[in-house]
Amino acid sequence: MATSPRIGVLGAGGRMGRTLIQAVHQAGYQLAAAVERSESSLVGTDAGELAGLGALGVKVVGAIEEALAVCDVVIDFTAPAATEAHLLACRAANVAMVIGTTGFNDAQKALLDDTAQYIPVVYAANYSVGVNVSIKLLELAAKTFADTVDIEIVEAHHRHKVDAPSGTALMMGEAVANTLGRDLKQVAVYGREGYTGPRDRQTIGFETIRGGDIVGEHTVMFIGEGERVEVKHMATSRMNFASGAVRAAAWVIDQSASRYDMMDVLNLK
Amino acid sequence: MATSPRIGVLGAGGRMGRTLIQAVHQAGYQLAAAVERSESSLVGTDAGELAGLGALGVKVVGAIEEALAVCDVVIDFTAPAATEAHLLACRAANVAMVIGTTGFNDAQKALLDDTAQYIPVVYAANYSVGVNVSIKLLELAAKTFADTVDIEIVEAHHRHKVDAPSGTALMMGEAVANTLGRDLKQVAVYGREGYTGPRDRQTIGFETIRGGDIVGEHTVMFIGEGERVEVKHMATSRMNFASGAVRAAAWVIDQSASRYDMMDVLNLK
Amino acid sequence: MATSPRIGVLGAGGRMGRTLIQAVHQAGYQLAAAVERSESSLVGTDAGELAGLGALGVKVVGAIEEALAVCDVVIDFTAPAATEAHLLACRAANVAMVIGTTGFNDAQKALLDDTAQYIPVVYAANYSVGVNVSIKLLELAAKTFADTVDIEIVEAHHRHKVDAPSGTALMMGEAVANTLGRDLKQVAVYGREGYTGPRDRQTIGFETIRGGDIVGEHTVMFIGEGERVEVKHMATSRMNFASGAVRAAAWVIDQSASRYDMMDVLNLK
Amino acid sequence: MATSPRIGVLGAGGRMGRTLIQAVHQAGYQLAAAVERSESSLVGTDAGELAGLGALGVKVVGAIEEALAVCDVVIDFTAPAATEAHLLACRAANVAMVIGTTGFNDAQKALLDDTAQYIPVVYAANYSVGVNVSIKLLELAAKTFADTVDIEIVEAHHRHKVDAPSGTALMMGEAVANTLGRDLKQVAVYGREGYTGPRDRQTIGFETIRGGDIVGEHTVMFIGEGERVEVKHMATSRMNFASGAVRAAAWVIDQSASRYDMMDVLNLK
Repeated sequence: MATSPRIGVLGAGGRMGRTLIQAVHQAGYQLAAAVERSESSLVGTDAGELAGLGALGVKVVGAIEEALAVCDVVIDFTAPAATEAHLLACRAANVAMVIGTTGFNDAQKALLDDTAQYIPVVYAANYSVGVNVSIKLLELAAKTFADTVDIEIVEAHHRHKVDAPSGTALMMGEAVANTLGRDLKQVAVYGREGYTGPRDRQTIGFETIRGGDIVGEHTVMFIGEGERVEVKHMATSRMNFASGAVRAAAWVIDQSASRYDMMDVLNLK
Repeated sequence: MATSPRIGVLGAGGRMGRTLIQAVHQAGYQLAAAVERSESSLVGTDAGELAGLGALGVKVVGAIEEALAVCDVVIDFTAPAATEAHLLACRAANVAMVIGTTGFNDAQKALLDDTAQYIPVVYAANYSVGVNVSIKLLELAAKTFADTVDIEIVEAHHRHKVDAPSGTALMMGEAVANTLGRDLKQVAVYGREGYTGPRDRQTIGFETIRGGDIVGEHTVMFIGEGERVEVKHMATSRMNFASGAVRAAAWVIDQSASRYDMMDVLNLK
Repeated sequence: MATSPRIGVLGAGGRMGRTLIQAVHQAGYQLAAAVERSESSLVGTDAGELAGLGALGVKVVGAIEEALAVCDVVIDFTAPAATEAHLLACRAANVAMVIGTTGFNDAQKALLDDTAQYIPVVYAANYSVGVNVSIKLLELAAKTFADTVDIEIVEAHHRHKVDAPSGTALMMGEAVANTLGRDLKQVAVYGREGYTGPRDRQTIGFETIRGGDIVGEHTVMFIGEGERVEVKHMATSRMNFASGAVRAAAWVIDQSASRYDMMDVLNLK
Repeated sequence: MATSPRIGVLGAGGRMGRTLIQAVHQAGYQLAAAVERSESSLVGTDAGELAGLGALGVKVVGAIEEALAVCDVVIDFTAPAATEAHLLACRAANVAMVIGTTGFNDAQKALLDDTAQYIPVVYAANYSVGVNVSIKLLELAAKTFADTVDIEIVEAHHRHKVDAPSGTALMMGEAVANTLGRDLKQVAVYGREGYTGPRDRQTIGFETIRGGDIVGEHTVMFIGEGERVEVKHMATSRMNFASGAVRAAAWVIDQSASRYDMMDVLNLK
């Protein structure tokens, strides 16, 4: 597609929506449309001003249909019920989707799969380009070091996160364990206190830091004798996910109807 | 004392002994004497060559008395039974001591205290200048941040360490907790797994990394909204402790008979 | 002052303005007023919705006088010409100010000083609590290590920053150099390439990283033999400065007319 | 080869020699022989005691021929003139070599190439497994991120290092630049001071830290919007290179006569 993709942002008034507007702008694309709930006081404001970019000449609208008429693709990081309605509207208007909404129930998941038979849909657990690259780096490092090193995974997130370790830390642990032929459930260690004995090389340690408003940091350490290699990913803002979603949006408009994830977008499969 | 201190190294053939010889040399002092067990094949070799420095013209001797005749102070990182004999010899020869030996029994501790009534003795749990400075930094940071931040302590040591967290990590946790009026036993968290709920600000988290031959790393994080401050200490070799011990040796020869620790040496009390 | 401070935010529609609204909310205070330029499309919107917090029942107004009637203090991170008008309005209304605007000319600086004779004004180069604490830690560390270590200052900022090193890095360098009796102009090293010769201990190295949208990171390293101590400050969002400004606002309303900085607010002088 | 490799260490009395003895021991192999200059006071001592391991029953000998009779391979991290003699001796005795000596002149390089026609020889600029793995990780990361990130390379070494950046940092820079089709000579930036203007994405920044006795640290940062990925290698002792050399020794005895490097040993070509 030679011309600039016409990208619309759903949920434009939320924090993620504004970040998506910034990401579209930063990637050098024209924002095509911005949608917010019809009852929001933000409908009618300039989407650029809303995102702190200065006026872009695109007014926030309260009806998705109005937006779809001028879009090739929309990015949707809203809520399950809203995304359900958006799937129906996009299929009707034949507009591609990039979906970052989480928390779908089974019926909603089925609707997503069904819709992807008619329009191209990207749906990823993690839109960060860096996280997806890191997984590949970890597999390569684990393969070469094999059993000559000790592996530890340190992650840090904000004080409001209620579970541990993070899904991304576990995903990294799975990638390493699978490469080494280990079963993560058998070898994961989640804390050390008191008498632990010497370290068993087969184990993979997880250390979980919680504090402040840390967006997300993951460090995987391969520790040998006299040296170590670390692969570290730091997310410092939602822009991380927003940039990846915009990259996915520009990619998906050239694809045929199907469901895709970020490994497809990045050609890392 | 205007002239260079005459420093002797006990246990000169062990790894710590050689590092002490290097540290004496690096501090710009002349090594006065080096002692090893009389049955060692290293007796008679040049102490400088033994330490990888090239010949220094000081032969390793097998009897401490021979060394004490030419020393103002000896540094002793050996074993409890050996140090017991050294205490008696140094008192008899009126030579000061810097002791890094660990694992004394009660009788040996009493002998150390008794000897310190006759000669000046430095005896510290940790000879690292950096660790001692760090404790002071942590107290100052904790006092200013008070309850506006989350505090986490990450430590890393080699794979052979059998307990967790390290004594130094706990010492740092005590320093912070005492400054904030918290009871470390009540507020320490040693691991996070599964559903943890949001972080309680009063807690102090410990994360323990074990791998390879890491000498010792400690990072204390003060994590607020939009920012954090970290104080990090890295020990990368025994030279860390050896340098501190040599600094203590140069200091103690000007003191009167008594028992001292590193906070005395560094004037941080 | 027993009741909650009545805080107004000027420039409420800009990115920093929205972050200040979030910081007021996060500190547990009621936002009293929000002001934007009268011609902005955002006037009349709910300030809470604007900041991504949901409706707070406070409409953005286009005239500062309207806001001052209900405020004890206003926070102003706008532009020099705007702040000039705000100074006159706040003096007339007897409302305290916290000012983060940069780039004043001499006449504007004189106006600020003059205004501070009538109302309390906080004006700081850096509102980060962490940066101000770090300066104190660096002074203490430098004093104890003295000339036994090599000192290096690594800083990282976003790709759009046009000068190097950062003002904060230089401020840290000054703090360390002053403590050690060195002249930063004489001892600063800003890059190393080719044949450099062995390091001169008196020098203080600066390493400047530029990339992406890094908000601001500073690490000061005290590097000895076998160990090092690092003091690191990471700013991860404007919230860093916004929280400090709100802390200053809550503090300044109890002060008499004068000009203050963050070291006053934090009692670190 | 089913049985344990018979490994000899040349230059056994030097610091690297002792570390090699430790590495042989740590890898679970029997030390076969240890050689030192015939005039050294260390000839005749127990090689294990010399390396701080306790007696191993292997006396340090003063003539290489004596050692070669009981070795399949020798490891040589000595000096050019010594290695020249060793090459001749090993060819005569048909013993494989792992060479870490640096600073050869052209004639010595030619001798090395010639000798490798008769016996298998590993000769690598850097024996660290971690550095070699890191190069591969950097190539993969650079390929996926392409021009969407800013790349910076931070390295740290001891205060005695007289050039900058390190050879390893430049090697990493070359790997990244080659992957991206850039000419490192054109795009490398070695320091930033004063007015620099906004960052040019095509540049690759190098930041060089010098201090204390840092063995060697390299961090390559891929910095995007809202995220970054870092690949970090830390060498913390000579053991790093010694372990890699022992891994090469165990590998090379099964190879035919030729010259190899660490990418061959690690199967990363």
